[in-house]
Amino acid sequence: MAKTNNQKMVDAITPMDQDFAQWYTDVVKKAQLVDYSPVRGCNVFLPNGYALWERIQRTLDDMFKATGVENVYLPMLIPESLLQKEKDHVEGFAPEVAWVTYGGGEPLQERMCIRPTSETMFCDLYSKIIQSYRDLPKVYNQWCSVLRWEKTTRPFLRNMEFLWQEGHTAHATAEDAEARTVQMLNVYADFCEKYLAIPVIKGQKTDKEKFAGAKATYTMEAMMHDGKALQSATSHNFGDGFARAYNIQFTDTNNQLAYVHQTSWGLSTRIIGAIIMVHGDNDGLVLPPRIAPVQVMIMPIAQHKPGVLDKALELVTRLSGLYRVKVDDSDKNPGWKFAEQEIRGIPLRIEIGPKDIENNQAVLVRRDTREKYFVPLDELESKVGEILETMQQEMFDRAKAHLESNIYEAHDYETFKQTIAEKPGFVRAMWCGDVACENKIKEDTTATSRCMPFGAPAIDDKCVCCGKPAHKLVVWGKAY
Amino acid sequence: MAKTNNQKMVDAITPMDQDFAQWYTDVVKKAQLVDYSPVRGCNVFLPNGYALWERIQRTLDDMFKATGVENVYLPMLIPESLLQKEKDHVEGFAPEVAWVTYGGGEPLQERMCIRPTSETMFCDLYSKIIQSYRDLPKVYNQWCSVLRWEKTTRPFLRNMEFLWQEGHTAHATAEDAEARTVQMLNVYADFCEKYLAIPVIKGQKTDKEKFAGAKATYTMEAMMHDGKALQSATSHNFGDGFARAYNIQFTDTNNQLAYVHQTSWGLSTRIIGAIIMVHGDNDGLVLPPRIAPVQVMIMPIAQHKPGVLDKALELVTRLSGLYRVKVDDSDKNPGWKFAEQEIRGIPLRIEIGPKDIENNQAVLVRRDTREKYFVPLDELESKVGEILETMQQEMFDRAKAHLESNIYEAHDYETFKQTIAEKPGFVRAMWCGDVACENKIKEDTTATSRCMPFGAPAIDDKCVCCGKPAHKLVVWGKAY
Repeated sequence: MAKTNNQKMVDAITPMDQDFAQWYTDVVKKAQLVDYSPVRGCNVFLPNGYALWERIQRTLDDMFKATGVENVYLPMLIPESLLQKEKDHVEGFAPEVAWVTYGGGEPLQERMCIRPTSETMFCDLYSKIIQSYRDLPKVYNQWCSVLRWEKTTRPFLRNMEFLWQEGHTAHATAEDAEARTVQMLNVYADFCEKYLAIPVIKGQKTDKEKFAGAKATYTMEAMMHDGKALQSATSHNFGDGFARAYNIQFTDTNNQLAYVHQTSWGLSTRIIGAIIMVHGDNDGLVLPPRIAPVQVMIMPIAQHKPGVLDKALELVTRLSGLYRVKVDDSDKNPGWKFAEQEIRGIPLRIEIGPKDIENNQAVLVRRDTREKYFVPLDELESKVGEILETMQQEMFDRAKAHLESNIYEAHDYETFKQTIAEKPGFVRAMWCGDVACENKIKEDTTATSRCMPFGAPAIDDKCVCCGKPAHKLVVWGKAY
Repeated sequence: MAKTNNQKMVDAITPMDQDFAQWYTDVVKKAQLVDYSPVRGCNVFLPNGYALWERIQRTLDDMFKATGVENVYLPMLIPESLLQKEKDHVEGFAPEVAWVTYGGGEPLQERMCIRPTSETMFCDLYSKIIQSYRDLPKVYNQWCSVLRWEKTTRPFLRNMEFLWQEGHTAHATAEDAEARTVQMLNVYADFCEKYLAIPVIKGQKTDKEKFAGAKATYTMEAMMHDGKALQSATSHNFGDGFARAYNIQFTDTNNQLAYVHQTSWGLSTRIIGAIIMVHGDNDGLVLPPRIAPVQVMIMPIAQHKPGVLDKALELVTRLSGLYRVKVDDSDKNPGWKFAEQEIRGIPLRIEIGPKDIENNQAVLVRRDTREKYFVPLDELESKVGEILETMQQEMFDRAKAHLESNIYEAHDYETFKQTIAEKPGFVRAMWCGDVACENKIKEDTTATSRCMPFGAPAIDDKCVCCGKPAHKLVVWGKAY
């Protein structure tokens, strides 16, 4: 129905099947999530895009705090000498930082980079404020922006500057650090599945793909509509590597000096790219109700007729304590309003016109399935809740079905290559552990090892690439 | 009482009357609000300090949104050519910016500064997204960090990098812009008085003191405990100056091209300095209950005795839906715990020990007055609320009395100079409007014009400095 009314507006979105990349760009722009800026690779987050990040931030922040996380804020500039203390870390990040060389009209004695991530600054802080086992654990997090000088960029997926949270913790024992690393990956996965309706595969990164300076990196990988993978959050166990480089020692319960064990974990605005590419359709965004900044848009029909606007405003008042609800009382025609609500992905639309008022009902339309519900006005509160919950669950179920039906297995290299080439999705296959095979696979297929899933049993005893003995099951896929 | 128990901890704070600046530094450090960082002039916001900013942010953000503000996020880097378009603005800020000259290992073709404020970036955005009167007004705000290369810095009061919000709006008419400028100053003043218990003087800045590029700057000024002024938030009306420099035009209702009228307004982490210096005492911070991250700290006394800890935890459960409440069940002794709660400025302490349990009561102690209340346990919920509200009101009343009793009047220059020299506080005096008098007063007394208060009647007809005819009443004071 919206289609015929709004051909012009909707047509501006390139169909997914025709050109997925262009579809993505069109949705991002048409839903007014971001705009371009005068700085290459840096986007402006417009109100619709930023509101989504605010919801993510508030929800995740509450989940963090329930596990004892405390928020802090550290300076955005990092002196070069501090960045260089941990060898692997500086090698990983130095090539992609921005350097400040002048300040207050003077050249700086030591140049400073804008943080690409803040391990080094947290290490410096921890080396000063941790003295005794009584000061442990430290479970700090900051919400901030970081900057990495990327060559090619795409809105949300890869920006030079992006918003994120970075948690950095210090623990008395290796066991505590490992437990926190896993705990935070689980928080991310719960958040992703429960709020974003995105099923994820949790597992460990191979050494090639792990974070610069980490002993182990855990990740959650999601499958986009086009079968490609998006690394959606990572959690790193640093062991005592950074502690040794930055001299973070404490007096333990036996009065002995010991190094702390550290972790870090982050989730960024990249996740918004996942929401778009997992749930969106040819008419625009589709937002999971639990994360949608606006859950319900009330649309007065023939709003100039007496009583219509009053009734619409009455419904807003009734619903607004329970849901995030707005009314579109602009002077645009209803078809245009519908198309806008659909492009923005607002989960539920409530149409209320003179005839509906006469019948003491409203027409509810779900964004994902376009299902229509004729609801008596006195049942509105409960019915809206039911529909939003059902929609949330069904969005997750569809995404889960899509993920599961696009995972393949390969036991030999020909099948592996053919599957990657022909079928969008992931391939499960055994790996010997040699980086040479990882490199060869990437070169031959452009697929990379996404992760070694937790608790996954072996499906074969030889490497899918070289045929040598293999014990590690890897999920492979093309990635964003 | 706390004094005798905790001489050591409390003694570490220099008494206010002895050295106010040192008292401030001691409180900031002892309350663990910030720590120093390897970057000169940049502080680390520790959990206690950042939690305060989070409360400020959330409260103010809700107030903003109630007036139609939408949040966005713009890039932190500003290309030099963009910064230079508005002459007064670049002159004001260019000397104190940090320049990025290298990125991704290459020298940049055009250097970029880290935002000292974002007028220029918002102007660039508005020039692209505003076409018609239908696009107006735009009432955008961002929460972010900014960087200004300050020579001398002090925690919260003047940092090289600080956190703030900056609102930037565009309107169809000069009247709309003026109304928004005043509206936002009133939001700040309401927030300050209702939540922070800090009375403010609202008024206009002189041309000398106004923002670089503004037509008019409105300010709210607060008086610290030592009688000095702290400019606590400002709201600027730009007229169409930036619109002309950045070519922000729209088609008006008569189908004519016109320039938009703009405003900007900001409040920063500086306000935390005001909270400290208005309410703090010789034992540390005193936080107004409405903004305190923790409002109530429950202290089990003799917590090893059976039933004590259970009862304390039961009280936490009972109170935590209503108030921000925590329990200190650490193994420190009660005296130490009391001193910590006092240094951190937590408004209310609830002591519960075996004797209290026997008497079915708890002992409540207010942070500001040290008043003690013996409260039957079944009245706890309501009594806590009453005490917190009373404390909030009395903190405001005391600050208001302090402000009013430290404002003087001067009708001649000798009295003016003598008052500034001898009496901490503000002086109200007439001014001819000539910047030469402003400069002379600053040179002679170090006092500056804080503002020309809104709606204040003239108290004389000649300038307190030069004796020429004067119509403007100015509040003068030494300032942070």
